[in-house]
Amino acid sequence: MQRFILSAKLTITLKILITLGLVNVCQYLKAEDGYRLWLRYDKVENAQQLAAYKQSVTQVLFSGNSPTISAARKELFQGLSGLLQLQPTETKTVSQNGALLIGTIATTPILSELNLKSSLEKIGTEGFFIKSVKINQKNATIITANTDTGVLYGVFHFLKLIQTGQSLSNLSIENSPKLTHRILNHWDNLDRTVERGYAGFSLWEWHKLPDYLDPRYTDYARANASVGINGTVLTNVNANALILTPAFLEKVKALAGIFRPYGIKVYLTTRFSAPVEIGGLKTADPLDAEVQMWWKKKAEEIYTYIPDFGGFLVKANSEGQPGPQNYGRNHADGANMLADAVASKGGIVMWRAFVYDDKVPDDRAKQAYNEFTPLNGKFRKNVFVQVKNGAIDFQPREPFHPLFGAMPQTPLMMEFQLTQEYLGFATHLAYLAPLFKECLDSDTYAKGKGATVAKVIDGSLHKYSMSGMAGVANIGNDRNWTGHPFGQANWYSYGRLAWNPALSAEEIAEEWIQMTFTNDSKALNSIKEIIMGSREAVVNYMTPLGLAHLMGYSHHYGPGPWVSNKKRDDWTATYYHKADSAGIGFNRTSTGSKALSQYFPPVKAQLENLQTCPEKYLLWFHHLPWTHRMKSEKTLWEDLVGHYYLGVEQVRNMQKTWDSLKGSIDEYRFAQVKSLLSIQEKEAVLWRNSCVLYFQQFSKMPIPAGYEKPAHPLTYYEKLEYKFVPGN
Amino acid sequence: MQRFILSAKLTITLKILITLGLVNVCQYLKAEDGYRLWLRYDKVENAQQLAAYKQSVTQVLFSGNSPTISAARKELFQGLSGLLQLQPTETKTVSQNGALLIGTIATTPILSELNLKSSLEKIGTEGFFIKSVKINQKNATIITANTDTGVLYGVFHFLKLIQTGQSLSNLSIENSPKLTHRILNHWDNLDRTVERGYAGFSLWEWHKLPDYLDPRYTDYARANASVGINGTVLTNVNANALILTPAFLEKVKALAGIFRPYGIKVYLTTRFSAPVEIGGLKTADPLDAEVQMWWKKKAEEIYTYIPDFGGFLVKANSEGQPGPQNYGRNHADGANMLADAVASKGGIVMWRAFVYDDKVPDDRAKQAYNEFTPLNGKFRKNVFVQVKNGAIDFQPREPFHPLFGAMPQTPLMMEFQLTQEYLGFATHLAYLAPLFKECLDSDTYAKGKGATVAKVIDGSLHKYSMSGMAGVANIGNDRNWTGHPFGQANWYSYGRLAWNPALSAEEIAEEWIQMTFTNDSKALNSIKEIIMGSREAVVNYMTPLGLAHLMGYSHHYGPGPWVSNKKRDDWTATYYHKADSAGIGFNRTSTGSKALSQYFPPVKAQLENLQTCPEKYLLWFHHLPWTHRMKSEKTLWEDLVGHYYLGVEQVRNMQKTWDSLKGSIDEYRFAQVKSLLSIQEKEAVLWRNSCVLYFQQFSKMPIPAGYEKPAHPLTYYEKLEYKFVPGN
Repeated sequence: MQRFILSAKLTITLKILITLGLVNVCQYLKAEDGYRLWLRYDKVENAQQLAAYKQSVTQVLFSGNSPTISAARKELFQGLSGLLQLQPTETKTVSQNGALLIGTIATTPILSELNLKSSLEKIGTEGFFIKSVKINQKNATIITANTDTGVLYGVFHFLKLIQTGQSLSNLSIENSPKLTHRILNHWDNLDRTVERGYAGFSLWEWHKLPDYLDPRYTDYARANASVGINGTVLTNVNANALILTPAFLEKVKALAGIFRPYGIKVYLTTRFSAPVEIGGLKTADPLDAEVQMWWKKKAEEIYTYIPDFGGFLVKANSEGQPGPQNYGRNHADGANMLADAVASKGGIVMWRAFVYDDKVPDDRAKQAYNEFTPLNGKFRKNVFVQVKNGAIDFQPREPFHPLFGAMPQTPLMMEFQLTQEYLGFATHLAYLAPLFKECLDSDTYAKGKGATVAKVIDGSLHKYSMSGMAGVANIGNDRNWTGHPFGQANWYSYGRLAWNPALSAEEIAEEWIQMTFTNDSKALNSIKEIIMGSREAVVNYMTPLGLAHLMGYSHHYGPGPWVSNKKRDDWTATYYHKADSAGIGFNRTSTGSKALSQYFPPVKAQLENLQTCPEKYLLWFHHLPWTHRMKSEKTLWEDLVGHYYLGVEQVRNMQKTWDSLKGSIDEYRFAQVKSLLSIQEKEAVLWRNSCVLYFQQFSKMPIPAGYEKPAHPLTYYEKLEYKFVPGN
Repeated sequence: MQRFILSAKLTITLKILITLGLVNVCQYLKAEDGYRLWLRYDKVENAQQLAAYKQSVTQVLFSGNSPTISAARKELFQGLSGLLQLQPTETKTVSQNGALLIGTIATTPILSELNLKSSLEKIGTEGFFIKSVKINQKNATIITANTDTGVLYGVFHFLKLIQTGQSLSNLSIENSPKLTHRILNHWDNLDRTVERGYAGFSLWEWHKLPDYLDPRYTDYARANASVGINGTVLTNVNANALILTPAFLEKVKALAGIFRPYGIKVYLTTRFSAPVEIGGLKTADPLDAEVQMWWKKKAEEIYTYIPDFGGFLVKANSEGQPGPQNYGRNHADGANMLADAVASKGGIVMWRAFVYDDKVPDDRAKQAYNEFTPLNGKFRKNVFVQVKNGAIDFQPREPFHPLFGAMPQTPLMMEFQLTQEYLGFATHLAYLAPLFKECLDSDTYAKGKGATVAKVIDGSLHKYSMSGMAGVANIGNDRNWTGHPFGQANWYSYGRLAWNPALSAEEIAEEWIQMTFTNDSKALNSIKEIIMGSREAVVNYMTPLGLAHLMGYSHHYGPGPWVSNKKRDDWTATYYHKADSAGIGFNRTSTGSKALSQYFPPVKAQLENLQTCPEKYLLWFHHLPWTHRMKSEKTLWEDLVGHYYLGVEQVRNMQKTWDSLKGSIDEYRFAQVKSLLSIQEKEAVLWRNSCVLYFQQFSKMPIPAGYEKPAHPLTYYEKLEYKFVPGN
């Protein structure tokens, strides 16, 4: 199949192979265009391992026949036929060593003899249990759970054991998600453009739905289920009310039907003014009885299409979106009205805390906290407040959002962004798990030491009744789903961290590389080296030392430290960096905007004090003179310049390491990533030169000796204009 | 690779195969998602044939080393490795039977002994020559040409012989294109939306160009070269001047570099007002010296990027586009200015005749003729006037455009539309070759009998110095390129007819089916039956008996016979069908708009006379009472209704025939086409019911007994609204 796509690289390969007489045409069918993501299921290369695996899977006893169990069975056979080149026989009894028993306790009577009750109690409704046991004196492996979805997750985990070269002997795995809601947010418009989407256009072909069901929808569901993602918001938070009309609900129903067997619920965004726009009402006031009734009826209607509809995600009174404040009501009023409409069916509302207003004369970083903390405990039980990881907007680095820990009576849901709006779009390699982890591991001190953001989010700190994480998807109709092959790692790691925030970025990277690229340890280590340092490289060449929001106006592409005098001050760069001849940085201490006072005292104390404030957050909280002496003994100016140059250097090192992989990984992705890294290097230089030259106007200090000089003067960079930037 | 996409269908297949013990994992890699188009190169199934082919290709002598020859070599080896599972050795001398000699005369000295001069003179610069010969007493086959591109075309033809199961013995093939310019027109916008595009979004990823070169660009070039397409206009005729700025020319250059080895030149659309919009001039008057100089310099600049740049396609003074008439000049003034700018580099201008204006009180069908015939002979030598096949706009059926034959001194280029703007988008199966042929075979009588449109277009009738055909592309970033798998047949057949307008729709269909689906004669015949009747089915359920322009407003989706009172009268349906209680149809005879007078007398006479006017064009030219007696003896009303019902019946028969193919073709495309046919059936019923009920208001006659009644009253259909229709 894939020979076709390979044409450009085929000659060289063919020549070599022809010479060697080694051509196996089947090989050409396997061009790695990235479509298969981490579910590649290629034959295990190590012959010894392969033989051992085959001994562990000689017969399969699959019980149950729900659509979810069918999906699990399909996956297992697909996985084994690839990984082990094996089609184990399905039997009803264990008659030889290497039996694999799969099913829930309820559908697998034989399991009831194994005394698994206490284990099964521990794993809840979505967890699974994989254990090596003896049945009829034969060695067997059981994959079981309390629910069909748990079984499906168990099957994916079992396949991963093989994909990552782990032993199948003496297994005893209990695994269950730490968070109840693990959800992708697609910012997909109904015309298939994707706001801040850089991987092509929306997967959802609304025009052909509900009749034509692209097999890709199923593969999307498989990928999500394989990492435990259990919900998807199909539409943009900047919402269109038409998604709630029958013509579109019919289409949503079709997608929900495909996703359901994979344990994935469908959610929609709501436009708060929908009762006026499509309902013919005069108002959308959440305290108006008619409006409340309209939403109740609308919710009932949705549930007739999708009986397990997940609920609503809402962006209200933010960046021009309508909301309860248009009617003098607060966020709780708005959220509760919607929550009441879906409560009886088990639906939830995810109400975004991403609100700020340039009419409010306060630091943008403070506004969400100011608006939401007074509403702590005022929301219905089925409402999440969804909070971005930082107080501004998905920057390459932000300190954790002060709302985490500050709303003990209202479940907070984490909102991470997988699409790299501010980290180089789909052309920069930036592994985001370290960014996610930096936030999750931050200590809020909400209940003294150890009150990490992860503990807020997983509900354990405040005993939330539900817990959740949202990831703004980086998925589009590009063949490889995410544009950049390494964007897949962000989808993957988001899912893994939503399942268990305690996992390390490194262990996730390792398993992702093994499944996506190779089990060869040398190549694996090289790729790991690249991805583990990638996010810090981006921080260095874009926004080091706590700087933020320096990107191009509106489209957010490329550097724009000079952006000022726009429609809104809080959409400019100068608002954030505040560079002047006296120095640089946003003073958020008690002598400045006092944003630091929103943190619990130990955090505030640490960050307020220049001696203890980590330099990575320095200019986020402090305005400091260019001559400020850094821990490196350099001046702030020199240190800042050093970071910009280091960022470029890091990209060049990534290039070198990548080049060393030639031959160790497939040609297709090797060439693709090589091209993308060269774009990244070019743009990193653009960022560095633009920012260094721009800030130099104020520092009036030289670029230290030894650094390559920017190729052009500042005016050149300021004049660069970009048209038709995607995702805008 | 493709196992992944197959997941949904894998279980059943797997179960069967597991039972039979026949699983070959390699099979799963070959899901037919349509990406490979007609260049599938799967192993020849007939063992005898395979053996014979292998004897004919035992060694290869490839001469030359240009990029084009490299592309040809790559293609040959890719093709043979798939079709024959063979990697023939490359040698320098013929040492055994079955040698394949490939190269131009100039690079292949051995060929000069074969006395091929006269043959090579006949085939010109793009033709090729495939011949069975004896060299050193051994059987050999030569593929040769005067140019590298000819060699490439010959290689594709040679592979096609194998793909379609033809003998490789006693070959003597001389083949050369009848038209010099065979060009795709992409109506692709710079934001990657495609005007009237229904196969996803634009292939051109402007943002990542020129650095990232998607391997798909190469496959696009391969597909085009395989059918002889030698030019591509990258951008929409509703043009954006920014494509002419350096940032974009750099990107165009990258694409041109990929396409060049495949014999494909790049063209761009120009916005006539570009000198004002991006040039800073005060005017775009084509007679203004400064404007002329601006275009000259712009052309020079373009040629520094793309030394073999093809030229410009221009839509001017049409549907709101600026043009020379804005300055009181005519089309020739505009075209000649641009032609002068590119002439010295061999560039051409394709100036569209698609002009009409609702301010002009004459029949829209007459306006292009009226505007352009006075300009006959007034254009520079390097200007084509590009004329749509019919006088309105790519309707399911139109009589040929009266301009064909009417401009003997100005080369006319045919403009066909492959994207099915008016034939059901990418969800309806409609093979357009019969539509193309109907036009090409029409006799204009420009020089007496036998002066077909094809002879106008190929230049033979008027001795044009160049000849051309344009196809408005139906290609997008959908995995299978054209959305509907059968849309590929329209791309294919367009290319084949541009190469040779004398080919029949049926022979093209046959070879396309063989290459794209199967060589099994039963299945082939079933598929041929479906596609050969498909366009007539669309005509029947949309616009039978010469009706036209009955579709939905603006987006052109679905039926809209009731569309009236819009911004422009010539954008309504009522303007075209003129149904009233007296009858239906547009009177273009001498008692009406006199459009018929634009045809040569024998044509006019035939169409004017109700006895001789083919009923398929009846209502295009005549307004007739509902009781008009048809050849079928039925009234016009009954006959009209009969056509609408027949159209639906034809789609249902297509469904039945398709269903009979289960098992004979791959699962993926079987299921996909089945889904699409069911959408087509649903929409055919919608068209039928809407049109029959709408016209019934005027005829006041019953739907004849025996026909199924429309499910809803007319008002239901009139109220249907479609949002976010693609391609709009």
